[in-house]
Amino acid sequence: MERKQTNLSVSVDVTKAKDFLAIIDTVGPFVCLIKTHIDIIEDFDSTVIDRLQELSKKHDFLIFEDRKFADIGNTVALQYSSGVYKIASWAHITNAHAVPGPSIVTGLASIGVPLQRGLILLAEMSSKGALTTGSYTEDAVRMARARRDFVIGFIAQHRMETIGASEGDDLADEDFLVLAPGVGLDAKGDAMGQQYRTPEEVVLACGCDIIIVGRGIYGKSDQLNTESVEEQAKRYRSAGWDAYKKRVSLS
Amino acid sequence: MERKQTNLSVSVDVTKAKDFLAIIDTVGPFVCLIKTHIDIIEDFDSTVIDRLQELSKKHDFLIFEDRKFADIGNTVALQYSSGVYKIASWAHITNAHAVPGPSIVTGLASIGVPLQRGLILLAEMSSKGALTTGSYTEDAVRMARARRDFVIGFIAQHRMETIGASEGDDLADEDFLVLAPGVGLDAKGDAMGQQYRTPEEVVLACGCDIIIVGRGIYGKSDQLNTESVEEQAKRYRSAGWDAYKKRVSLS
Repeated sequence: MERKQTNLSVSVDVTKAKDFLAIIDTVGPFVCLIKTHIDIIEDFDSTVIDRLQELSKKHDFLIFEDRKFADIGNTVALQYSSGVYKIASWAHITNAHAVPGPSIVTGLASIGVPLQRGLILLAEMSSKGALTTGSYTEDAVRMARARRDFVIGFIAQHRMETIGASEGDDLADEDFLVLAPGVGLDAKGDAMGQQYRTPEEVVLACGCDIIIVGRGIYGKSDQLNTESVEEQAKRYRSAGWDAYKKRVSLS
Repeated sequence: MERKQTNLSVSVDVTKAKDFLAIIDTVGPFVCLIKTHIDIIEDFDSTVIDRLQELSKKHDFLIFEDRKFADIGNTVALQYSSGVYKIASWAHITNAHAVPGPSIVTGLASIGVPLQRGLILLAEMSSKGALTTGSYTEDAVRMARARRDFVIGFIAQHRMETIGASEGDDLADEDFLVLAPGVGLDAKGDAMGQQYRTPEEVVLACGCDIIIVGRGIYGKSDQLNTESVEEQAKRYRSAGWDAYKKRVSLS
């Protein structure tokens, strides 16, 4: 983040490998993290991963497969390591829901820790009516605290520092990243319940570290315009980083 | 179920296409439903789906892809329809977590309803420390009730009839299927937090309709023994159907 002066993550939710790689090559210089949904790419084959890894090195970003694992330990271990995608072999970071209980972290850690991968837990979601509230969020944070060798942060709308903590917990060296989804400078939502907030709101007011932007950067058009994508990536990088610098200077 | 006198669903959690299809061909005559994790098959290609569909016709069972969708509406619609797997094109039934809120059902319904597919919501899980309790389960059931044109049942440990209902709700014609995971006649759990109950417990005592059995039927051995798989499938079919008949005769 510091090296590239960016706290922007772009979520590349397109279904054609050509568009997927073109967007990543365009926004690469401006992001710290590329978030993927590898399972929506229709013409996927292993060369897509090869090219993604090349771009990761070329532009110095980490790859975050937004798989939202949500099954029991035995199953997620197979889904993470095996199958067509072999996510653990190329994604520096992936994420999981807390809903199955601690066994999901155990299952993923059995694959990810030996490969020095990191896990993000979903503590809150940005969609309307999400059930990630109250004791659910507290339990998710407790699950993370119990596995700090593998869990590096949260998908959330706020900082999680004191959430779910008991008296006597040693939180002094706790340093979880907070990644905020649902960030947009223009739209307020979509037709399917997604809700957007601005970088200023999520970083400065709510203390999140990384902003995740998707359709705000590459739009919905079938005709990809890389000039406009680059312009939007720069715009979001500035908005996110300005908010981050402001927050850090205040603390 | 009635036609084949079975309430058994086999969860085929193996990573080789050959084993996957061999197990399904063996247990096919004894099941109402085959539950798949298509994303753990290492040598997947589209012929696996062709063959799976042939077996579904040959043995008269439905296909249930246990995808546990858990993202916002826009994303799950893409994951369900697109990508390498095109789940909506072949899985009669799939499932989703309630955690993102009602938008997940909206997103999946936009793809599944036109194809006459059915959705199962996860109201409870069988893994240790699962967060599917209390108001979480109630909200999941309410989400299902709001979309009875698409949601056909629950993954749960008990019947859900009065859960989350308000006074004045018309529940008379409510007829959700309840599918119980974590069923085993021999083991009590695995090393990753899975917990097992017997068919008698889940069907007779707790009122579930369909038992889901995985490793109890095909074991963990690398060498698949189809004779033993057939024997176990018959054993679980009997145990499940006996419990079901007993429950129906009591009600």
